[in-house]
Amino acid sequence: MPQYKLTYFDGRGRAEVTRLLFAVAGVNFQDNRIGVSIPPQPSQLPIWLDMKPNTPFGQLPLLEFDGKLIAQSHAIERYLAREFGLYGEGNYEMALTDMWIDSFEELISPIIQYNFGPGGDTEKAEQKKKYLETTLPTYFKKLETDLGNNSSGYLVGKGLTVGDLYVLKHNEWVMVSFGEEGQMAVKKYPNVQAHIKRISALPKVAAWLEKRPQNKF
Amino acid sequence: MPQYKLTYFDGRGRAEVTRLLFAVAGVNFQDNRIGVSIPPQPSQLPIWLDMKPNTPFGQLPLLEFDGKLIAQSHAIERYLAREFGLYGEGNYEMALTDMWIDSFEELISPIIQYNFGPGGDTEKAEQKKKYLETTLPTYFKKLETDLGNNSSGYLVGKGLTVGDLYVLKHNEWVMVSFGEEGQMAVKKYPNVQAHIKRISALPKVAAWLEKRPQNKF
Repeated sequence: MPQYKLTYFDGRGRAEVTRLLFAVAGVNFQDNRIGVSIPPQPSQLPIWLDMKPNTPFGQLPLLEFDGKLIAQSHAIERYLAREFGLYGEGNYEMALTDMWIDSFEELISPIIQYNFGPGGDTEKAEQKKKYLETTLPTYFKKLETDLGNNSSGYLVGKGLTVGDLYVLKHNEWVMVSFGEEGQMAVKKYPNVQAHIKRISALPKVAAWLEKRPQNKF
Repeated sequence: MPQYKLTYFDGRGRAEVTRLLFAVAGVNFQDNRIGVSIPPQPSQLPIWLDMKPNTPFGQLPLLEFDGKLIAQSHAIERYLAREFGLYGEGNYEMALTDMWIDSFEELISPIIQYNFGPGGDTEKAEQKKKYLETTLPTYFKKLETDLGNNSSGYLVGKGLTVGDLYVLKHNEWVMVSFGEEGQMAVKKYPNVQAHIKRISALPKVAAWLEKRPQNKF
């Protein structure tokens, strides 16, 4: 097994699904946190600004192993999902997993904007309202239906995929960002709620959630 | 071979790389354009508004075949790239292809905002400046280097991948959106320029570029 090194900020953010993939596969990795929190404290910023120009696209996370380097969080997730058999069976199930990764990107990226992007109180309130009343329901309608139609208890096919981990991860984003209002919004989707409970209780997932570093984001 | 049906607007947009994949693989598909241009004319809007609620995420394109349905443009592209052998050899090359698909998404999505998003003249001028002076160089620095390091003449590994088609597609976006200023910005990357010329001249690519419907976007 290669020595995997995952480099990211000291936070969950765009690395946590990768960490979950390692945890679920039972594969050790170096969880290299560069000592910069999310969002960065002013005193930490020089660390990242020094490092940034030496990354492929001025971004983290990065995955290194066997002298190889992968940038882009979803490229890292897909690589490990293929490696660990967490992508679905056959090309069509892989496509459904891809579809959900891209859909969760469209769900998570406005939450990141909400938390860290520009805008005053009025704008933030509008962003929150739009997210909970329009964006989330658009995707959750299909998520709820698909989970209801799949008797396996997973999002795609008969086994765990990176898609299931994204259901979990997105829910963390909603809770930490929108609190009780977020809780109210997702409560309307009982299949999604049951799914989150079920996936969180898988022994290797539960062990990671228990032992991982405490970070807000 | 399944009967593929690709449903999209009457434009290139987020379906054109999929059409290129079919063209390169020499596989027939139904190029189902719903009679709504990009951007839609007001008189065409009802067609799309009628259809939108019946799509999985309120979006196009969609790919249908054998009673199956895939939403999300990149999920469609990845499915066909796996099917047609246009994803690279082995897991690591596939990861590099994934990395470039995601990077081109980050390059193309601000161009879509520039063309179709809100903002007056001042804001548009700022968006253009930021794109050509900051965004594009961030990704093109690595693109230029990677192309220079790969003696095969392709972006990833020894053969054509969806990554090469994105180099082409992105260049179309830059040209149609930023005109001469775009041309000036990309001229600084001779490997990228040579690559675009080479990929455009591949017989199956050239044939598609020649015969495809004329659309601005």
